[in-house]
Formats: sequence, structure tokens, C-alpha cells
Amino acid sequence: MTAGEIAALVEGELVGDASLEVTSVHSLEKAGKSQLAFWERKRRGRDLPATNAGCVIVDRRTRAAGPTLIHSSHPRRAFAKAIRAVMAPASHPAGIAPSASVASSARIAEGVYIGPLAVIGAGASVGRGSVLGPHVYLGAGAVVGRDCRLHAAAKVHGNVRLGDRTTLHAGAVVGADGFGFVFETDHYENFLQVGGVEIGDDVEIGANSCVDRGTLDDTRIGSGTKLDNLVHVGHNCQIGRHVVMAAQVGLSGGVVVEDYAVLGGQAGIGERARVGAKVQLGGQSGLLPDKTLDAGGAFWGTPARPLREQLSRQALVNRLPRLRDEVSRLRRRIEELEAS
Amino acid sequence: MTAGEIAALVEGELVGDASLEVTSVHSLEKAGKSQLAFWERKRRGRDLPATNAGCVIVDRRTRAAGPTLIHSSHPRRAFAKAIRAVMAPASHPAGIAPSASVASSARIAEGVYIGPLAVIGAGASVGRGSVLGPHVYLGAGAVVGRDCRLHAAAKVHGNVRLGDRTTLHAGAVVGADGFGFVFETDHYENFLQVGGVEIGDDVEIGANSCVDRGTLDDTRIGSGTKLDNLVHVGHNCQIGRHVVMAAQVGLSGGVVVEDYAVLGGQAGIGERARVGAKVQLGGQSGLLPDKTLDAGGAFWGTPARPLREQLSRQALVNRLPRLRDEVSRLRRRIEELEAS
Amino acid sequence: MTAGEIAALVEGELVGDASLEVTSVHSLEKAGKSQLAFWERKRRGRDLPATNAGCVIVDRRTRAAGPTLIHSSHPRRAFAKAIRAVMAPASHPAGIAPSASVASSARIAEGVYIGPLAVIGAGASVGRGSVLGPHVYLGAGAVVGRDCRLHAAAKVHGNVRLGDRTTLHAGAVVGADGFGFVFETDHYENFLQVGGVEIGDDVEIGANSCVDRGTLDDTRIGSGTKLDNLVHVGHNCQIGRHVVMAAQVGLSGGVVVEDYAVLGGQAGIGERARVGAKVQLGGQSGLLPDKTLDAGGAFWGTPARPLREQLSRQALVNRLPRLRDEVSRLRRRIEELEAS
Repeated sequence: MTAGEIAALVEGELVGDASLEVTSVHSLEKAGKSQLAFWERKRRGRDLPATNAGCVIVDRRTRAAGPTLIHSSHPRRAFAKAIRAVMAPASHPAGIAPSASVASSARIAEGVYIGPLAVIGAGASVGRGSVLGPHVYLGAGAVVGRDCRLHAAAKVHGNVRLGDRTTLHAGAVVGADGFGFVFETDHYENFLQVGGVEIGDDVEIGANSCVDRGTLDDTRIGSGTKLDNLVHVGHNCQIGRHVVMAAQVGLSGGVVVEDYAVLGGQAGIGERARVGAKVQLGGQSGLLPDKTLDAGGAFWGTPARPLREQLSRQALVNRLPRLRDEVSRLRRRIEELEAS
Repeated sequence: MTAGEIAALVEGELVGDASLEVTSVHSLEKAGKSQLAFWERKRRGRDLPATNAGCVIVDRRTRAAGPTLIHSSHPRRAFAKAIRAVMAPASHPAGIAPSASVASSARIAEGVYIGPLAVIGAGASVGRGSVLGPHVYLGAGAVVGRDCRLHAAAKVHGNVRLGDRTTLHAGAVVGADGFGFVFETDHYENFLQVGGVEIGDDVEIGANSCVDRGTLDDTRIGSGTKLDNLVHVGHNCQIGRHVVMAAQVGLSGGVVVEDYAVLGGQAGIGERARVGAKVQLGGQSGLLPDKTLDAGGAFWGTPARPLREQLSRQALVNRLPRLRDEVSRLRRRIEELEAS
Repeated sequence: MTAGEIAALVEGELVGDASLEVTSVHSLEKAGKSQLAFWERKRRGRDLPATNAGCVIVDRRTRAAGPTLIHSSHPRRAFAKAIRAVMAPASHPAGIAPSASVASSARIAEGVYIGPLAVIGAGASVGRGSVLGPHVYLGAGAVVGRDCRLHAAAKVHGNVRLGDRTTLHAGAVVGADGFGFVFETDHYENFLQVGGVEIGDDVEIGANSCVDRGTLDDTRIGSGTKLDNLVHVGHNCQIGRHVVMAAQVGLSGGVVVEDYAVLGGQAGIGERARVGAKVQLGGQSGLLPDKTLDAGGAFWGTPARPLREQLSRQALVNRLPRLRDEVSRLRRRIEELEAS
């Protein structure tokens, strides 16, 4: 791909050699002559550092001798788009590895790749163009849409439906039993879980993350939602579209997360709580069961409070030594008054 | 199964059509004519909502036209029991998938199912009626009791013994080395772990959870204990019977958890700490190393405190702005007194 | 191995029967005549408890009739060394299980063991003496050094290089895509991850832990670093040498952790934050994005503060009831003064 083609793709303005051949991407520090890099000006930032990169995507103001520049009003987005074009993997060859165990009743569309030692259960179906890595498991009746990517040892139980272009990273588990028990006299009995999981299009589920099946109805994750690694989604959760959950977030059963919410790493949400649309929840926050975070707000802490309130609480606690000293001074002044 | 048979099973009182055939269960909103649902009255709740369910388990007071009702003093428990009867999976066919790799010295009882591409190590034994899913791994000498269920890619190292009717969900790891090192001059040396893991009957271990082997003795989990997904149990932990740990709970090494304790999601327990019997520990709580939570209490926060104390601390911090204002007012009154 | 040989190995002083044959190790409570145990005196500790152990490693002061004693100035370290000698597994037999799927272009050194149903991708290489368990996955081009140990179902994507003597526990995932997206109008687009992971020598990565590949450059973990179970290391993290992370620690993208730092369980580190060398960070602490913890300090809490500061804050909050009462008393005294 030439620098000129990249500039056209990202709708940037090229200054330099439009015919430069770009073969891959790298960081500004390490890129070489045939590589593309990008550079974002920090608030009080310096100019473009010295670089050997052949081509750099920069903001509109940056000028520099040496590399071919592509000016963009959103260098980061432009670079992300360019990477997808420059580094796009050749489409995966189709085929079923001879060592895979595929049930005869499974429906495998054209153009599907199934890796070595994968197991595809009875009646499972895999849509056109999907790529299943080694040791992947699809339970009986599981449904995988088109152009999905299931990495090594991703596990999809029966009663799970994945939309199109959805990615499960290595070791992710979708559709395990929810954690439901009833206490009987002196022990717990299972509350048998019979629901499923419904996952939309363009969803990502991180490595070793777990999404449990619903108790009676389905657990749902809307299209465009992205879950990082080691996330837990309990039974019956209803997660909207374009939600982001950072690593190690945990959702108890029956939690509702509305569209475009963003949950920071290690945040925990109690049973049946609701996170409103576009909420920004800080890392390690804890939302108590049955509570609601109003749409559009920023929240932090355990129990989760509006961010400003939380920060002002922290500031007040920070000033406690001063308050204690002030009270001591007042006591002495009162004693003087009393003595006079 | 008929509505009458279900009523008899759960010792409920049937009002309606005892001969109604119930083929499955669903939520009240989605159940149809041949389905069973249940309904719990909320504290200030309304009457049974409109439903198409053929049969509904309800409390003793609820009356409704339409569906056949089964009155029970514990609708939730009764429903759990009914689900197990109505939805009970047909007993799993026995057999060993040809693609499984089973050591010749392994002892596999009658009625066992071993799924495709499972690996059973030398001298491992599997008790009657147990079902091992695809990609399950049993290390050399591992012991699995009767009627256990090991889901896809559950991993059981050697030196692990599982009791009867125990379930490992997909990706769970039991018996990995504990995290033990000794510092030598400028680096860590391994403290070689040689203990095992002993797990009782009717235990559940959630998807991608990890239970480490003991250093010298065994890590132990008592009968009836239930662990949710992504839980970590460190080496040498001694966990009692009928303990419940919600998702992402973490136990350092040598922790003791006594019978019937309940640990909320993401709680963390420090080395050698002890959680007393029937303790209720709130989500995200942190118990410091070597500390004890007294039996029967409710605790919350980091460091974990009695729940009431923790709530009153939070209330006091909430009232800090008022306290600060009060101090300011007092100062002004003192200044007036001093000026007079 | 005889007690005398063990004493020589750990440079301890033997009192008793140097010719005693020691065949294994156990805890002081459970060890028998042919077993080695150890005992550490607690601060105000009693003398060596009664034991059936044939041989016990103890401190320099302890005297006891019965077992052969090995006196050492560091009993714990000495015992760790002795365990490695007494319990050292016989070197693993080499060979490739017939059920493993090994690409013809993979380079497998001499003395390597590859377990049943492992998958080794094209061009991957495994160094001399390494042992790969069942269901292990090496992606195309992955590099495993010498004498590594990859336990059951460890997953190593392409673009990952492991140094020598490095251990991946069961279910660990190294090299999955980082969590990088750019927001476009109304949805997230992938920021394609093209970096790798570089892991040094003598590193341990716990069961079901995840280390993501870098975005452009590599994620790095220095030699001697130990990660416990269920740890998350985000893309582009730069982790030094001899770092220790307890279970369920989470690192966002671009975090720097310098040499010899110790992170307590469930601690969370925000994007691009820096943990200085030899820092001790308490369990469940949270370090905000872009913040730094100065080298050598002890820190705790969210947001992480110097440990002393954090403890004094907690003490002040504990004394809030007293402060509130003091303010009430002052108010009454002012009222009396005003009334007089």
C-alpha cells in the first residue's frame, strides 16, 4: 500500500512522497523506512520527535522534515483505520482440520475454518466465513454467526447464539450454568438453569472471561459491546449495545447495563442493579444490589457515588487532620474564655 | 409430567387442571400453555400479572383466574424442585469417545462418559456415572468420584480427589501449584509444592476458577460448598461445608473458611485469615492477613468490619460537610464572645 | 537421600542420625519416620511440638529429643532447597504424543515432551528439555525457550517469545489481542493489535492468567517475575525483573512495574501508571491512570497512598464519633458562655 493510498483512505492530507511503499506499522520509536507510525501531540507537547519512520500520521499543525506526513484531524482514528488496511490478515483459508471432531448433524457453512482438535457438537451451526481455532468447543445446538472468530479453546455451550463478526478470545466460556441455589434445611439445592445466552453482532469477549446462561430466559449482550479479559457476567444479565467493560469486571445475576456505558476495571455490580446509558463507572467501583446509576453520569467508589461527590468526600477525609486541629484550638479558646 | 404430579412433588395445593401436561419451564412473561412458571409476591407487590403459563407455582394467598395454580409456602424452593423434575436431563449415555486419550492404567467405572479429546492420565480413576466433557484433563492419579460432572476443558491435576456428585464448570483448574517462593539474595526460588487437593461431595466449582494444591498437606473444600466463576483458592486453604463464594472471590494461602459462610463477589481474604461459620461477608470486602471474622456476624469493607460499624462509618463520613460547617459556626461564635 | 546429605546441601548442622534415609517431605504434624519437615519459631513461640518426623529443619536455638535435627539460620529457605532435592521429579521422558498435532515446520529441540492433543503451529519452536502438557496450544511462530514447563491447556499465541525455565500454569493465555478500540460516531472500531509478548527466563504465569500482546511494540515481562492465578496484564505493559503479583491483580494498558515490586492480591493499576522498584502495594489497592508510586515505598488503598498515610486516615475516620461528640460538647460550652 502506498502512502498516497493511505492518505486517501483516512481522508488525510499528504506532505511528502505519495509513492512510498508502506508494508507494516510500528511505534514512532521503532518504525523504519517502509513502516507507518502515528503521533499524537500531548497538551503541552513538543514537536514530532526524531524518527526513522517512512510515513507518520500526525495532527493538522505538525510540521517535520524527513518522514512523509499524513495530516489528519483525528490521528489516532486515522491510524487505527490505516492499520486495519495495511495489516489486514489475508482471509483465513477455509477447511476442517482432520483432527477436529465435528458431529455429523452440525451445519458448517462455506468458507468456515475449524482448527485442529476442535469439538463441534450435534446440531451446532457455524456461519459463513467464521474461523474457529484449535481446541474450540461448541456444545450441541450452539449457533455461531458469520465471520466470527473463536480463538483457541473458546468454549460455547449449547443454548448459546452468537451474532455475526463476534470474537471470543482464548479460553472464554459462554453459556455455563448460572450460580443459582436454594437453601433447604441444611444445604443448598441447585436451581437448575435452563435459559441460554444471546450475543449480538460485533461483540468481543476477552480471554478467560465467562458469560453465564440465563436461569429461565436468556442472558443477553447487545451488538457492538466489548468485554476485556477475565470478566464475569452472571445469569440473566441484560447488557445493551456498545457497552465497554474493562478487565476483571464482575456482574452478579440479573444486572442491567444500558447502551454505551463504560465500566472500569475490577468494578463489581450487585444483583439486579442497573447501570444507565452512557454511564462512566470508575475502576474498582461497587454498585450495591438493586441500585441504579442514572444515565449519563460519572460514578466512582464503593458504594458507587457521583464522581464529584466521591472526590469531595475524599478531600474532606484528607482535611480531617486540619479539622481535628481546628477543634483542639477552639477548645483551648473556650477554656480561655471560661477562665476569664 | 402433569400439574397434579408436580403439586404432589412439591407438597403444594393445586387449584385448576391436575391433568395438565407440563413439558418445560419458563419465566412468567414467556411461559406458554404447556409450561410451568412461578411467581413470588414482592413486599408491597401486586397480584399475579397476566400470563399465558399453563401452570404457576404461587404463594398461599395468591388467587387468579386462568392458569392452574400450585400454592406453596415456599414458591421459589418448590419451583426449583419442580424444575429438577421436569427438566431433568435424560441420564447421559455412557461410553468413551474414540478421540479421547485414556491411559491404559486409568480405572474407568461403569456408566462413565468421557467426551471427545479428553485426556485421562495414568492411574487416574473415574467413579460410576460421572460425565467428563470434551477436552477435560485428568492428571496421573487424579480421583473423580461417582456421578460427577466435569464440563469442557476442566483440568484436574494429579494429587486431586473429587468426591461424589461434584461439578467442575468449563475451564476450571484444580490442583495447580500454589504460589510459594523464597527470596534468595536477589531472586525468588520455588518452594516446591507437593500437597494435593481434597474436594468433598456435591461441590460446585465455577467456570475458569482455580483451586491450588497444598504446599505439604492438602487444600480442602468441604461437601456442599459452591464456588462461582473466576474464584481463586490459594494453597493450603481449608474451606468448610456448605460455604458459598460469589464470582471473583480470592483467597490467599492458608485461609480458613468455616461452614455455611457466604462470601460476596470480589471479596479478598489475606493469608491465614479465618472466616467464622455462617459469616456473611459483603462484596469487595478485604480481610487482612491473620485476622478473624467471628462466627455468625455480617461484615463489610476493607478492612472488613462489622456491617453496622461500617455503615455508621460511612454515615459519619457523609455528614463530614455538616461537621465542618458546624465547626466554622462555633469558631465565629467564639470570635464574637472574644470580641465582646 | 540421607539426613546427612540434606544437612550438607543446606549448609546446616546435623544433630542425630546422619544416615537416616529421607524419602519425602511433609508438614510437621503429619510427617513420619522417613520424612523431612521444618519448623519456624514464632516470635513468642513455644519449643518444637511433638512430631513423628524422622528429620526436622529448625533454627539454631531449637533443641529437641526424638527427631534428627538440622539447624539452619534460615529454616524456611533451607527447607525449600531440601524439598527441591528430595522431591525433584525424575526428568520428564521426552517424546511427542501421537495424538498431538505438530506442524511440519515447527522446530522441536531434543529432549522435548509434547503431551496428548497439544497443537503446535507452523514455524513455532520449542527449546531443549521443555515439557508441554496436554491440550497446550502454540500459535504459528511462537518461541518457547529451554526447560520451560507449559501445563495443561496453556495457550501461547504467535508473536510470543518465552525465555528459558519459564512456567505457564494450566489455562494461562499469553498473547491475546489487547483491548484497544477507537470510537467512531456511534460504535467502536478495533485498534488492530500487531505487537507481541516478550517473556524472560524463570518467569511463572499462574493458572488462567492472561497477558495481552502489545499494540505496536511488545508487552514485556522481565526474568524472575512471578504471577499468581487469574492475573490480567494489559497490552504494552512493561514489567521488570523479579516482580511478584498475587492472584487477581489487574494491569491496564501501558503500565510500568519496575524490578522487585510486590503487588498484593486484587490490586488494580490504571493505564500508563508506574509502580517503582521494590514498591510494596497492598491487596485491593487501586493506582489511578498516569500516577506513579515512588520506588521503595509501601502503599495501600484506592487511590493508593503511602501506607502510613492510609493507616492514619483510617484511624482518623475511626475517631470521627469522638470528634463529633467533642464538637457537641464545645457547642454546649459556647452556649453556656453566651448565656452567662
